[in-house]
Amino acid sequence: MRRPKAIVLLSGGLDSATVLAIAHKNFEVVALSFNYHQRHVSELNAAREIALSYGAEHRIIRLDDALLGGSALTEASIDVPVNTDANAVGIPVTYVPARNTIFLAHALAVAEVAGSADIFIGVNAVDYSGYPDCRPEYIEAFTAMANLATRAAVEGQEMHIHTPLIALSKAEIIRAGTELGVDYALTVSCYQADASGHACGECDSCRFRKAGFVQAGIEDPTRYFRRG
Amino acid sequence: MRRPKAIVLLSGGLDSATVLAIAHKNFEVVALSFNYHQRHVSELNAAREIALSYGAEHRIIRLDDALLGGSALTEASIDVPVNTDANAVGIPVTYVPARNTIFLAHALAVAEVAGSADIFIGVNAVDYSGYPDCRPEYIEAFTAMANLATRAAVEGQEMHIHTPLIALSKAEIIRAGTELGVDYALTVSCYQADASGHACGECDSCRFRKAGFVQAGIEDPTRYFRRG
Repeated sequence: MRRPKAIVLLSGGLDSATVLAIAHKNFEVVALSFNYHQRHVSELNAAREIALSYGAEHRIIRLDDALLGGSALTEASIDVPVNTDANAVGIPVTYVPARNTIFLAHALAVAEVAGSADIFIGVNAVDYSGYPDCRPEYIEAFTAMANLATRAAVEGQEMHIHTPLIALSKAEIIRAGTELGVDYALTVSCYQADASGHACGECDSCRFRKAGFVQAGIEDPTRYFRRG
Repeated sequence: MRRPKAIVLLSGGLDSATVLAIAHKNFEVVALSFNYHQRHVSELNAAREIALSYGAEHRIIRLDDALLGGSALTEASIDVPVNTDANAVGIPVTYVPARNTIFLAHALAVAEVAGSADIFIGVNAVDYSGYPDCRPEYIEAFTAMANLATRAAVEGQEMHIHTPLIALSKAEIIRAGTELGVDYALTVSCYQADASGHACGECDSCRFRKAGFVQAGIEDPTRYFRRG
């Protein structure tokens, strides 16, 4: 029997690669990445490699250059954070305005055209809880909206937004992905990775990732910059 | 006192031009149009003229070519409807998957960056009620989601989505806009307008528009194709 299709938002990072592996168990995956002049464009190359390794279809959607400004991830004039306390409160400077809403809106359109009722997104409310659009209540509200938005919904096809990582720690994500055979050497999490995907090892994202491997008791395959 | 900013979704058609005039009364308007390979690209030129005529900032957001397929408005292989009964039930073939969700998601990002808490959209649930994402319950659900999605919302800035046309007939929209001085000769509603914005007079959109002017008792300034 042909498996149903799912749309998986795939950034090329550790979390979304794990989500793809989880979705792949039960669905034929269409992986969706976004090009929005993010600093770490090497993530897009990583995303392609990861999708290929699962035999998934991979689409890159180009967002308008003028969008998604005002974040350390898209504006060269804002420094990426390198020393944030894991228990810091408030919204990180890496917050990108309405990012997940724009991503999920596109996923909804792609899902409807593909006849899919399942979208997967790697949001996580534990290790990095500062983003408003990573919270369960946000995902629930998006789902309610999506189920009023489309012809598919009106015709009775209920849309599900899966967030398999939402309650997991970084170490738990890494353990789950490792069990599913995810090759984390392919993934790029670093906010300032180089063109070939080597990580700085120092930004917040690298530090959370490193600590995750340590806590999981799993060897860290991340390719870091060579140091002099 | 400086007026607060509002984001107005401006297609270049009759409805959204009226919405711009309404928003302009109380807000400094940032008009947002989308280029998504729609057939009637002359609408974008119309949108620019309309925004200019109100001294509003006008931005055109380019959507990815691969998006928003499967509609008579974006695919040359699907004929535009020319003879639909005004009381027909069901969703028109001009439905574009998740269109208003994608439009509003972008407006939300632009609003947050601009420090605006007000988005205007010309949806209408009366004359042309087949689109799921034009219904009041959809707009309410989007608003609820938006108020969980952004840093601005978390910091207490409540987002409002204004739908001033939602309960108006086409004739009532035309009367309201005429009172506000909207120059409807600038607007393009036709599904198959030519490059300079002349209308066919026969597609569903043209027929609803024509009937609106007749019912409103206002002379129709629409520029139609010259006929032999």
